[in-house]
Amino acid sequence: MLDLPTYGDVVAAAQRLQGHAHRTPVMTSRTMNEELDAEVFFKCENLQRTGAFKFRGAFNALSRLDIQQKRSGVVTYSSGNHAQAIALSAALLGIPATIVMPHDAPAAKITSTRSYGGNVVHYDRYTEDREQIGRDLAEKHSLTLIPPYDHPDVIAGQGTVAKELFEEVGELDALFVSLGGGGLLSGSALTTRALSPHCAVYGVEPEAGNDGQHSFRSGAIVHIDTPKTIADGAQTQHLGAYTFEIIRRDVDDILTVTDAQLAACMGFFARRMKLLVEPAGCLGLAAARVTKASLRGKRIGVIVSGGNVDLERFCSLV
Amino acid sequence: MLDLPTYGDVVAAAQRLQGHAHRTPVMTSRTMNEELDAEVFFKCENLQRTGAFKFRGAFNALSRLDIQQKRSGVVTYSSGNHAQAIALSAALLGIPATIVMPHDAPAAKITSTRSYGGNVVHYDRYTEDREQIGRDLAEKHSLTLIPPYDHPDVIAGQGTVAKELFEEVGELDALFVSLGGGGLLSGSALTTRALSPHCAVYGVEPEAGNDGQHSFRSGAIVHIDTPKTIADGAQTQHLGAYTFEIIRRDVDDILTVTDAQLAACMGFFARRMKLLVEPAGCLGLAAARVTKASLRGKRIGVIVSGGNVDLERFCSLV
Repeated sequence: MLDLPTYGDVVAAAQRLQGHAHRTPVMTSRTMNEELDAEVFFKCENLQRTGAFKFRGAFNALSRLDIQQKRSGVVTYSSGNHAQAIALSAALLGIPATIVMPHDAPAAKITSTRSYGGNVVHYDRYTEDREQIGRDLAEKHSLTLIPPYDHPDVIAGQGTVAKELFEEVGELDALFVSLGGGGLLSGSALTTRALSPHCAVYGVEPEAGNDGQHSFRSGAIVHIDTPKTIADGAQTQHLGAYTFEIIRRDVDDILTVTDAQLAACMGFFARRMKLLVEPAGCLGLAAARVTKASLRGKRIGVIVSGGNVDLERFCSLV
Repeated sequence: MLDLPTYGDVVAAAQRLQGHAHRTPVMTSRTMNEELDAEVFFKCENLQRTGAFKFRGAFNALSRLDIQQKRSGVVTYSSGNHAQAIALSAALLGIPATIVMPHDAPAAKITSTRSYGGNVVHYDRYTEDREQIGRDLAEKHSLTLIPPYDHPDVIAGQGTVAKELFEEVGELDALFVSLGGGGLLSGSALTTRALSPHCAVYGVEPEAGNDGQHSFRSGAIVHIDTPKTIADGAQTQHLGAYTFEIIRRDVDDILTVTDAQLAACMGFFARRMKLLVEPAGCLGLAAARVTKASLRGKRIGVIVSGGNVDLERFCSLV
């Protein structure tokens, strides 16, 4: 039986993050309200430190280590945003950090991770097992492994995004959340059940990597090969033990969108809202646009999960 | 003797704007703080409605019209951001609006202005006099002319940007403000003298269009030909009578920056802060980077004035 995090852990995480994480703005767009005939609130985690919500979970998890663990250091594996989040959190807390990153991660993410002082170790995301590499490094150098999503403290930290959103705009009818490994989605769902219990919570995946949808509908964690999608922040191969249990219990459905729908949303965010959003950060809005009919007249939350995309890649996508 | 607006007018404007204009976020960047060895606060008016601070002055001015004036309608001339601001404000207040825009204004600005319901009339910015066209239309159709900057209600509305900034972060040592016709700069200066009297206020122009600097230093309004610069939002030919008087009295200096420095700042805002900022919106930061040495250890405000740039143009500039 797993010891799942609770909304109380989210509240404790919010206290630890105070003065360290940005309280990101909630933005609205008249254009999108008209398109969806609904009231849409965007929680802009692309404006979070390190450019993604991941800073919350990373900082919360690292804050809870004991002195010996902090001294020995941490290791993690990440396609990018969790890497930067761990690197910056570790730097702020004076903890040595080793980050296992795919060699083909966006250059901006690798550069940022290094600039925050992280020690980057590369692997091939199509042939090697990053979790095994992380575990081996942890054992060899007595490092604490902080996985990118399947960890109660990481989940509790990510739950603070929705907490801020509900505190600012009140209860909602539906919340759309990017889904990779499920850290943001499970944290958001926990918080939603506490603060807006009647709000439907939707996880959104790239169509090419819909393992979460299969898992949710079959009742068991489904593993897939690394999916090929522009949403590099959601190229996970499977949900985690913790995230799956919470998602099963607290999420209403898992939806999918195409890469073309994600690219269209990147253009919308840039043209109309002046925001740079990475493909995975567009998952929530893309799904809301697809399910438009059932949203009419409702109050909708969309978590814009991150903004880390190379400008060259951004320009070629929009 | 001109009846110059006062900080009291800024306070009244803030009340009129409540619930209509966004209270835009103040953002920070650890990277920029390190680069300048200072604490920098960005007031993000690119996230304002219509993508620029101009909405504040336009809405304030239109709110003050009497019933007859509202019924007859308004006319204005603008290279773009004031156009959209008047068009949206007029739509919100139920006022017919005619907008005189250069035929080569960014397509995004023309499209937005039309989408807000504005009636767009084109002119050639290199051969025709937009102010004359505006006055002629006003007389012919009994329209009220709302100029883009040289109007006490417009200046008072723009002054609410700095008011929100000081209210949020307290007093500052220096404030960098984009300068075109001087609406934002004079409003910011008025507010600064009231809320942070020892703060130095700098207006920043493109080097190719430094009429404001000449005017400030010579003590008389200097007219120039439409300058060729990437900062289309600051291609004004001269300061206004109201704006010049306030700038003379309340501003510390006018600085200039090159197009290359503006483009570098666009890249910084996109890469590090995930914000789309138009060239004229980068004037403040570009000048702060140039005057870096004298800012060490200080608390600096930078007004990011707008984000309306065609994506194609944005991508070619960064």
